[in-house]
Amino acid sequence: MSDHPLNYTAYLIDLDGTVYLGKQALPTVRETLQKLRKLGKRLLFLTNDASRRREKIAAKLLNMGIEVAPQEILNPSYIAIHYLYQHFPGAPVFVIGEGDLADELSQAGLQLCDDPARIRVVLVSTDHRFNYRKLKIAFDAIRHGAAFLATNADRTYPGQNGEEMPDTGAIIAAIEACTAHPLDVLLGKPATTMAELALEILALPAAECLLIGDNPETDIRMGHRAKIPTALVRSGIAANLNPLSESDSPNYVFSQLGDIFKT
Amino acid sequence: MSDHPLNYTAYLIDLDGTVYLGKQALPTVRETLQKLRKLGKRLLFLTNDASRRREKIAAKLLNMGIEVAPQEILNPSYIAIHYLYQHFPGAPVFVIGEGDLADELSQAGLQLCDDPARIRVVLVSTDHRFNYRKLKIAFDAIRHGAAFLATNADRTYPGQNGEEMPDTGAIIAAIEACTAHPLDVLLGKPATTMAELALEILALPAAECLLIGDNPETDIRMGHRAKIPTALVRSGIAANLNPLSESDSPNYVFSQLGDIFKT
Repeated sequence: MSDHPLNYTAYLIDLDGTVYLGKQALPTVRETLQKLRKLGKRLLFLTNDASRRREKIAAKLLNMGIEVAPQEILNPSYIAIHYLYQHFPGAPVFVIGEGDLADELSQAGLQLCDDPARIRVVLVSTDHRFNYRKLKIAFDAIRHGAAFLATNADRTYPGQNGEEMPDTGAIIAAIEACTAHPLDVLLGKPATTMAELALEILALPAAECLLIGDNPETDIRMGHRAKIPTALVRSGIAANLNPLSESDSPNYVFSQLGDIFKT
Repeated sequence: MSDHPLNYTAYLIDLDGTVYLGKQALPTVRETLQKLRKLGKRLLFLTNDASRRREKIAAKLLNMGIEVAPQEILNPSYIAIHYLYQHFPGAPVFVIGEGDLADELSQAGLQLCDDPARIRVVLVSTDHRFNYRKLKIAFDAIRHGAAFLATNADRTYPGQNGEEMPDTGAIIAAIEACTAHPLDVLLGKPATTMAELALEILALPAAECLLIGDNPETDIRMGHRAKIPTALVRSGIAANLNPLSESDSPNYVFSQLGDIFKT
């Protein structure tokens, strides 16, 4: 396989900062995805956003004129459901999270629970309704032996109007501090759980996929860890990041997604 | 001054685990304090409990038959008021805390505020009503340049029925994680702020005081840092702690407070 960004079988593509920014599709994205599909390339879209179910993300993309099937999207709730079925079958789960996360888990047949004596897994995510009651339940459950998982570990996320908001990293830190128990499993980027599931779904070896994202610390780092070749797009968080740290340096750098056809 | 625990001018005595446990006075405490007073010794009582004002702590002690004036008690709200007047005169303060803390600050004439653009100091303490809204205000204020203070940094505290509860350490960790800004000033033990104020009130050099407490990591460590001689009582948290780490080893070890007269 020659060293050209079009010589891959599948593309794992980050959403926020790579495909869209806020409610706007980024330039060249729509036509690039269409061209890749025409070439018979397989596509999966990866996001750390735990508050929206896959159908809603697909609908948001469609609003921007980008056709993506919900099954082509890997979001933290999907990863969590898969991981919990595989590693903690039947285990009662306490969810600290917002939006669709708890609903999705529950609809997938997982048992949600807020009784610390019964909880076997504490799953933490973005939650702007986080409070002391939830902290205490997580604290008691983890001290009773529950596993401590998180969908992502971001310090902040961009809220409405682009305002920065405290994110899951703050909740993880609070629980780690009082329990003196470090997080057991991180499901989202830059952990490899999401990448491994993507490869499993595609039934492809890492070397046949190209991971494209805008964040060196999550997207590119996950690619390195999972031995998946990487391309950084400078359309999101890494627009002005220069130079990149060596450990997070990608195989390709594009100013935007469409550059994949210009190399 | 000979090396005898009765050869000090003043005694700085921890409360929980040294003077009482829960609602019970510990053995020999009452008569020991009376004997020390008869010898003309000066007494100050130090606690990291930020939820009760000094008058209530004095009333609790009186219920156990122990007479202590509110002015002999140094608690975090007293320390905070003193510190804020000294270092941040007139600055609007956002308080994350419970019980009497905010009331005491407000009655002492400090300006409480929850507008992130105006807040100059974020003061964190034990708060079982901690929630995302408070986290967000602290986050915005600290990113606008407010100083980040805490009354204590304990990971947990003993709640009713002796049940362990997440404490200020968890709230500090959450704020540090999302702001990427470490705590600026710790007011309570083992920081020396409380010890320095005690020496200022007594107008005595450190060498003329003996600090007596049950917790190597807070009481004894603060004594070391402030160069105050220390005595560990094995009536509270350190009952079964053996051996002590070298950095937290005290000048004297007593099984209970009364042993001060047996050496």
